[in-house]
Amino acid sequence: MARVLMKGNEAIGAAAINAGCRYFFGYPITPQNELPEYMSRELPNVGGVYLQAESEVAAINMVYGAAGAGARVMTSSSSPGISLKQEGISYIAGAELPCVVVNVMRAGPGLGGIQPAQADYYQATKGGGHGDYHLLVLAPANLQETVELVETAFDLADLYRNPVMILADGMIGQIMEPVEIKPYTPRPNLPPKDWTTTGTSASGGRRRIINSLFLDPDELEAHVLHLYEKYAEMARQEIRYELYNCENASVILVAYGTTARIARTAIEQCQRKGISAGLLRPISLYPFPFPAFEHVIDIPQAFLTVEMSMGQMLDDVKIAVAGRKPVHFYGRTGGNVPMPEDIVAKIEEMLRLK
Amino acid sequence: MARVLMKGNEAIGAAAINAGCRYFFGYPITPQNELPEYMSRELPNVGGVYLQAESEVAAINMVYGAAGAGARVMTSSSSPGISLKQEGISYIAGAELPCVVVNVMRAGPGLGGIQPAQADYYQATKGGGHGDYHLLVLAPANLQETVELVETAFDLADLYRNPVMILADGMIGQIMEPVEIKPYTPRPNLPPKDWTTTGTSASGGRRRIINSLFLDPDELEAHVLHLYEKYAEMARQEIRYELYNCENASVILVAYGTTARIARTAIEQCQRKGISAGLLRPISLYPFPFPAFEHVIDIPQAFLTVEMSMGQMLDDVKIAVAGRKPVHFYGRTGGNVPMPEDIVAKIEEMLRLK
Amino acid sequence: MARVLMKGNEAIGAAAINAGCRYFFGYPITPQNELPEYMSRELPNVGGVYLQAESEVAAINMVYGAAGAGARVMTSSSSPGISLKQEGISYIAGAELPCVVVNVMRAGPGLGGIQPAQADYYQATKGGGHGDYHLLVLAPANLQETVELVETAFDLADLYRNPVMILADGMIGQIMEPVEIKPYTPRPNLPPKDWTTTGTSASGGRRRIINSLFLDPDELEAHVLHLYEKYAEMARQEIRYELYNCENASVILVAYGTTARIARTAIEQCQRKGISAGLLRPISLYPFPFPAFEHVIDIPQAFLTVEMSMGQMLDDVKIAVAGRKPVHFYGRTGGNVPMPEDIVAKIEEMLRLK
Amino acid sequence: MARVLMKGNEAIGAAAINAGCRYFFGYPITPQNELPEYMSRELPNVGGVYLQAESEVAAINMVYGAAGAGARVMTSSSSPGISLKQEGISYIAGAELPCVVVNVMRAGPGLGGIQPAQADYYQATKGGGHGDYHLLVLAPANLQETVELVETAFDLADLYRNPVMILADGMIGQIMEPVEIKPYTPRPNLPPKDWTTTGTSASGGRRRIINSLFLDPDELEAHVLHLYEKYAEMARQEIRYELYNCENASVILVAYGTTARIARTAIEQCQRKGISAGLLRPISLYPFPFPAFEHVIDIPQAFLTVEMSMGQMLDDVKIAVAGRKPVHFYGRTGGNVPMPEDIVAKIEEMLRLK
Repeated sequence: MARVLMKGNEAIGAAAINAGCRYFFGYPITPQNELPEYMSRELPNVGGVYLQAESEVAAINMVYGAAGAGARVMTSSSSPGISLKQEGISYIAGAELPCVVVNVMRAGPGLGGIQPAQADYYQATKGGGHGDYHLLVLAPANLQETVELVETAFDLADLYRNPVMILADGMIGQIMEPVEIKPYTPRPNLPPKDWTTTGTSASGGRRRIINSLFLDPDELEAHVLHLYEKYAEMARQEIRYELYNCENASVILVAYGTTARIARTAIEQCQRKGISAGLLRPISLYPFPFPAFEHVIDIPQAFLTVEMSMGQMLDDVKIAVAGRKPVHFYGRTGGNVPMPEDIVAKIEEMLRLK
Repeated sequence: MARVLMKGNEAIGAAAINAGCRYFFGYPITPQNELPEYMSRELPNVGGVYLQAESEVAAINMVYGAAGAGARVMTSSSSPGISLKQEGISYIAGAELPCVVVNVMRAGPGLGGIQPAQADYYQATKGGGHGDYHLLVLAPANLQETVELVETAFDLADLYRNPVMILADGMIGQIMEPVEIKPYTPRPNLPPKDWTTTGTSASGGRRRIINSLFLDPDELEAHVLHLYEKYAEMARQEIRYELYNCENASVILVAYGTTARIARTAIEQCQRKGISAGLLRPISLYPFPFPAFEHVIDIPQAFLTVEMSMGQMLDDVKIAVAGRKPVHFYGRTGGNVPMPEDIVAKIEEMLRLK
Repeated sequence: MARVLMKGNEAIGAAAINAGCRYFFGYPITPQNELPEYMSRELPNVGGVYLQAESEVAAINMVYGAAGAGARVMTSSSSPGISLKQEGISYIAGAELPCVVVNVMRAGPGLGGIQPAQADYYQATKGGGHGDYHLLVLAPANLQETVELVETAFDLADLYRNPVMILADGMIGQIMEPVEIKPYTPRPNLPPKDWTTTGTSASGGRRRIINSLFLDPDELEAHVLHLYEKYAEMARQEIRYELYNCENASVILVAYGTTARIARTAIEQCQRKGISAGLLRPISLYPFPFPAFEHVIDIPQAFLTVEMSMGQMLDDVKIAVAGRKPVHFYGRTGGNVPMPEDIVAKIEEMLRLK
Repeated sequence: MARVLMKGNEAIGAAAINAGCRYFFGYPITPQNELPEYMSRELPNVGGVYLQAESEVAAINMVYGAAGAGARVMTSSSSPGISLKQEGISYIAGAELPCVVVNVMRAGPGLGGIQPAQADYYQATKGGGHGDYHLLVLAPANLQETVELVETAFDLADLYRNPVMILADGMIGQIMEPVEIKPYTPRPNLPPKDWTTTGTSASGGRRRIINSLFLDPDELEAHVLHLYEKYAEMARQEIRYELYNCENASVILVAYGTTARIARTAIEQCQRKGISAGLLRPISLYPFPFPAFEHVIDIPQAFLTVEMSMGQMLDDVKIAVAGRKPVHFYGRTGGNVPMPEDIVAKIEEMLRLK
């Protein structure tokens, strides 16, 4: 298929439908509205259902229902709307159901603004909801990668029976880039959906129950330990990251999403100044690519985390580096985007070149 | 005043009313129901208002409203209910309004169970809602401390114009202990509430606006930087922790809430075995007592974080220790409570005594 | 007390507070917003509670709760908002709780318009909710009467343990007239509220239950028969109407609320033309003043019902007249108001004078 | 197609799908749950969508949406749930959208009971919602007629662009009878749906607006007059009723739905006693079959309205008879069903035979 120029939000929708998503439940919020609009237009054409729910709370619970029936189902929102979904997300994670949740982040807190941000990293990776659970979180940096990660997200959701979040900043949602939607087949060896509640005729007369309630503490603890075995398996199998120019880097930048693209420009500007800087770009935010740090820990003088926030991924970088090298931070927030020049200046300051 | 035997949930209510709380909005959930029940009974006696809202979402937005009018206001819930409040909490933090939110944690994720847990640490301290913001989070370990921290919470909320969370595990809510409710006066020098929206007659005819919307990124960034100056000031002024038996400790346990009480029993059992163990008990979870670690970092062979979760505060302990000493973890979850004997066994294992 | 110039919506609020109303739950809608605004400002001054709920559904259920605690409580809305309250109203009627519901009618159906109308007569008097029940419905025609009927409404609600509706058209809500709020004392001999659910200490340890559920048909039928005995008693005691100039009327107009004022002007215009017309003004719409028709049935050649609707009270007039005289109708709708001249023309047409 | 034994609720569903209904939005309530259950099972098999909404309010607004897109759409509930839908129903009527609403009536008011009743006649026929509008209301008396009226309902909804209500008592929902679902084709000459909002590509680039808001009173009045022209046309074309044994009847019973079946048994018992009684069974409740009364008005000594309520259709019977003959009433309520023997006794009493 030829490459088509698409807006990021539409590319997410196209990839989802390509990956077999047939149900979408959402509620409007800027800057992700092109995504539900796309789904409302295209899902009926493939026999799917788009539904604008009464609220974000309703939408996530409809996702819970469709996921329980074994459907490939997605919801999307932007930051405040994702906050409203936290209870439902915890329920879905607790009930071990596959679904894809897209957060096209805007600046917060509160109503905040409608410009891009990365200030929901904590919420996405640490668990904005209650209890011991994790989402599998993927953060694309361009639209072709967005398409691939959205498709992968549906596979991983089914593979691990776990909600997968696509954590995109508003810029990913709004930019236009050429993308290629390739023919998709689900990855082989996905486990059979032998847990769906679609009626006893589908289950050989046996009643199936989907639930996150375990009143006996031993049962609940066993359930949580089972969840954490899945997370450990994710940490072994699903870590995704990109290293760029790290071989001789004096400073290794750590950045994800749009910020990683800006970081690359800064690295190129550094090269022109004779400064060697590299990039460690986490693609899976949970599981966080801790092993990647072990590969490069001896190389740089310091690490520099760059985020469109006041510093949230910074925690994981500190945990990864564990005191072995200094960890610096540069961030912009409120919808402002870090400029390559400012990152370069920060690097020069770190290296006491200024 | 004499000491009175009270249940933890009631002690929270008594302390709140003593501290001038006159509005309570909530929705029932085990294991915190004695608290709204207490408020529904006692608030009318002091001219206050108790209201059981339509939902947790409604309740937190009523808190938003009452806080905007300058009232001392509280809500409480347990884990799933707190997840539903995340959007509202982010709005209140963004709008810089004082209020107190009580989370009497139960086991999760999802419906989970109704037994005690500490699995909402991430949500409470990292921001379960969206955007760059923080709550001030206080974690009591006994009922007298609960009373004092609840009263303090109202003062700190007013002082910093920030929501304060009391993070209590279900055991704190359910145990009975003698407590003394002392005559209370607000701390002196609380700033005047010259921002309330109670009508133009109160504000000299000037319209006041309470809002968390800043469409201009520069304005929003300036607002967030202002919030983070407050958080930095909290980190300077409001760090609370307790050190116990750390002077010659081979192992320093890090634990909060009920778990810290169990940890002390384990430490006493260690002493009988000739093992020196100490306790660093964070009382303020945000701001986290990083400086406390600097005081004791050279003493132990290792740290042991103990939680009623799969390990959430563990992240902050790792960041605090920064690789300088090993950081171990022992946790129970699902409503199960760590036993002192098991903690002792873990310590022995750490010290290769076993 | 001197007469004060007030807007109708405010006069309703002032009368309610004067009659001991201390709780108001509502949700904004034009053209009644001055009423909740008034209550939000004045209720706190008398130790009362104003609460803007999450929705009309929430508001009416809060009324249910406060009424169950024995408080004098009111809600108000305009037509679409009253539709949303129908389930709750049926519950309150079924549970036999006293409360006052104000409907400042706007034009419908649907969103309709915000101009005055009388198109909710069916809903108010026949039961917009489900099941066999009735509200006691009072329709004032000027502001002094509004004040008196609002105060009476609270007494009648307590006397019959039944919701009372003030059915006002938008004009009553918006006009300004001088009103006198006289010192109020509840009517003597109101029954004790020995059914409130305010805790067992108030009820001598006995549990009280407020409910509208009767799963046994015989019990439910007995309950409904009991309700209808109350309605029969209302029909004996609470019928209110005004006769004007009916003694020798060729045509008797039947009109309520603002329309009755316009009808009087039309009657005066008729007099100048030598046509004798009279007015039968129902003040209680339920119970409908059927006996009034018996007093005048022999007098006129015909009746003319005038409404700001397509003809709803018309049904009751037809039932009252029972074929003994012709019943004509003249109405305007959509927010348009009948003009006296048009009513006169209709009368002339009826009398074949044209 | 052979006759199949079905439960009434299922027969409604089968007929709806047969008539092209492809969307169903609802919320569970006894005694109609077999209907949504049927739709949830069968709609996906024909490419349709079943959705259990967050609430009755949400469900009726989803019906509004689907109807606006031109789909054949249905919702169902029982009495309290129908009350919650009143605002939405008024909106749909105001916006002139076709849909089918099923009310399987249970006893009220309030929670009432779950046994059959006919106490929502007022709500259905007079307008439980606000404003000048009417539903077209059809009341089947057996399951084959239910099937035919449900199919007809979809045609009439499209023909008049008006919501159509199937008013069934709980007995119709619960009984089992053989029904034949015949091949269905929509009635010819249904108007084209040239008003749907399905995107500008469907409308030749022109924006279509579906709305019930008319802020200008003249426009709203013109709109309401247009609605009432439709109602007048319905009164000319859509009146449905059945006369049984009326030719020489001393008493004509008026009854609809299940009560009409019981009335027929009473009539047969009368015949054995030598009393001639007949039945006028309204099938369309709105438009009410006033002309039918003109056909029989001279025959009987009196009319007897029989209802499973305290007397609601009774109003329309009185209006129809207009004083020309006595109108008696016999009813049971609360879930109790009139017994033929009791009806016979009432007839004997009316005829002073007792």
